[in-house]
Amino acid sequence: MKFFSSTQKAYLAGFLDGDGSIYVRIKPNKTYRYGFQVAPSVILFQSSKGKKNFEKICSMIKLGYLRERNDGVLEYTINRVDAIRKFLLAIQPYLVLKQEQAKLMLKILSSKEKIKNQKDFIALTKLIAKYAELNYSKKRKNRKEFVY
Amino acid sequence: MKFFSSTQKAYLAGFLDGDGSIYVRIKPNKTYRYGFQVAPSVILFQSSKGKKNFEKICSMIKLGYLRERNDGVLEYTINRVDAIRKFLLAIQPYLVLKQEQAKLMLKILSSKEKIKNQKDFIALTKLIAKYAELNYSKKRKNRKEFVY
Repeated sequence: MKFFSSTQKAYLAGFLDGDGSIYVRIKPNKTYRYGFQVAPSVILFQSSKGKKNFEKICSMIKLGYLRERNDGVLEYTINRVDAIRKFLLAIQPYLVLKQEQAKLMLKILSSKEKIKNQKDFIALTKLIAKYAELNYSKKRKNRKEFVY
Repeated sequence: MKFFSSTQKAYLAGFLDGDGSIYVRIKPNKTYRYGFQVAPSVILFQSSKGKKNFEKICSMIKLGYLRERNDGVLEYTINRVDAIRKFLLAIQPYLVLKQEQAKLMLKILSSKEKIKNQKDFIALTKLIAKYAELNYSKKRKNRKEFVY
């Protein structure tokens, strides 16, 4: 990944903006110190018809794993903290749609590493809650068509 | 578009690979010489939640029009022959998943312009039929997960 060219980074930014996702799940889990597992991930999606070529993209990234869902959708998931950070820092300059999500994710990864107590953990969950704001649909306007 | 940088072209290639479509419809229409309208298009999709930023991408391309479907999905459509050619020639070096579709589309646009008789028109429809092969799902393998 560190040897990626600028056009490869821009390509991946475009792909993530088009059909990808940056998010964090909080899962109740008693084995974790504060009762919850915080699971960040960056995912690229693709329908199974483009599998062979999609594998090329995955092999190029080499930071996650490819999974085929039961409905045939392919998911390339990056979920290790260091891998997410490496990937997002590389593509961030080129993101247009998911720029804010990328920034928020990087912030979350930093605070996740610095957690010392319950208070820090609650601050982290508040940061994660901000995703809802970013991902919810904005109020729609009635304009239906534009020419550019 | 002609002033696009290489990273902008790569970004748009990634976006089209992620959530775009290159195709040609053949619509029966008696007012056309051979009884059919051949309508090529390149479309970028986005859910309405990212509208504001998606408009930035559309303004950058300036070769088509933005439409909001009733289900809220945004479609940026490029359907003028010269505009499709300009767009595809710019991003083609960076396409990974839709490289073959782009080549086929450019071939179709050329033969569309050279049509002189019914025979040429039939050859064109055969070329268009090749999209079906490109877009149909390949036989699935049973491997479900890979690590890259």
